[in-house]
Amino acid sequence: MRVEIWSDIACPWCYVGKARFEKALQAFPHRDEVEVVHRSFELDPHRAKDDVQPVLTMLAKKYGMSEAQAQAGEHNLGAQAAAEGLEYRTTGRDHGNTFDMHRLLHFAKEQGKQDELIQILYRANFAEERSLFTEGDERLVELAVEAGLAAEDVRKVLADPTAYADAVRADEREAAELGANGVPFFVLDRKYGVSGAQPAELFAQALTQAWGERSPLKLIDQGDADACGPDGCAVPQH
Amino acid sequence: MRVEIWSDIACPWCYVGKARFEKALQAFPHRDEVEVVHRSFELDPHRAKDDVQPVLTMLAKKYGMSEAQAQAGEHNLGAQAAAEGLEYRTTGRDHGNTFDMHRLLHFAKEQGKQDELIQILYRANFAEERSLFTEGDERLVELAVEAGLAAEDVRKVLADPTAYADAVRADEREAAELGANGVPFFVLDRKYGVSGAQPAELFAQALTQAWGERSPLKLIDQGDADACGPDGCAVPQH
Repeated sequence: MRVEIWSDIACPWCYVGKARFEKALQAFPHRDEVEVVHRSFELDPHRAKDDVQPVLTMLAKKYGMSEAQAQAGEHNLGAQAAAEGLEYRTTGRDHGNTFDMHRLLHFAKEQGKQDELIQILYRANFAEERSLFTEGDERLVELAVEAGLAAEDVRKVLADPTAYADAVRADEREAAELGANGVPFFVLDRKYGVSGAQPAELFAQALTQAWGERSPLKLIDQGDADACGPDGCAVPQH
Repeated sequence: MRVEIWSDIACPWCYVGKARFEKALQAFPHRDEVEVVHRSFELDPHRAKDDVQPVLTMLAKKYGMSEAQAQAGEHNLGAQAAAEGLEYRTTGRDHGNTFDMHRLLHFAKEQGKQDELIQILYRANFAEERSLFTEGDERLVELAVEAGLAAEDVRKVLADPTAYADAVRADEREAAELGANGVPFFVLDRKYGVSGAQPAELFAQALTQAWGERSPLKLIDQGDADACGPDGCAVPQH
């Protein structure tokens, strides 16, 4: 079974939702047969790479709320995160463009390090005092190396803005096609969708339901197939 | 819609089947909404990298047939290929291990060059006089560069036998799970399977059928989702 998770590093509910999903997955009897794939979704794709703002300032500006109101929202989020055992800094965090992180996540996927990297990026954004956005590419290199990637490869990906850019855009197009207009968005075997940081119990239910309905492929054919297998190739009879 | 094609570069029916599938796809009204993904399947995974044999010798040895019988089979295959407008050398081709090519195809996928590369590898194996197997890594580098990849990156992938190896193995595991024991094997939206180089008409039917049955995701939820969208993050009410 395949679970795709659309999310953004800048999305607190994605951070919390991932933990809730993983709680359900850990308890799921068929967890070893579940492949989890992270998909890209940028909350703020039009923000320039160098346009970094404190989260509270961004929230206040965007929603016309006071910084105190924005701060209250962050405290609330922090409490939800704490309930999942996650660290969450409710003050002093930055908001910025995450396109390069998504490109790196696609690179990391091919290296078998995607989950390691997303976990590290979430922690860096939500739990660490250092900003994830103001220290330039070398900060990302450092985190990617921590995830097990080679610094030189990571620098190459970061230096070439087209690297994995298509893969990020393709994920975002697909999210739109699937009807996701917010994240996190979980898709199970392209059959069931779960929107938002739902409780672990709901993820457990979704996993069970999708697992129970896995169906074998229906074969469309018309008699003999011209195919090659370990024992050789069929010799055409027609 | 997504079509996954499991195949091997050493598989003549994969070469022919791809052309038949593409004929159907070209005529399919929704072709622009069909994503084609190539998946790895090795016909001869246990063959050593340096164990290269002429195809006719390999066939004769493997099936206890005469070289003349093997040659007749190749002529037959050549005729099938010609009927699809494909060049096919019926003599002088080599057989060998394709693992490195599959690793490169996974790398090419991330660079948006997978279809270019597989096309070039097929042509090199089935239509060109030069052997695809006896000239070492630099032959693959040359072909990959023709597909639009950077020589230096390709050399790096080839030099590291673990690069993309997991991705190849994962594809092969998945083929087994889906019940494919030969290639080409086509999977449409993980719902329909088509085994072998079927006629273009059958691929057309499969595309139409799978397209007609695309179903929107069923959402599993329980009321309000804690999610972030372009307009910000939901403020928790609970």
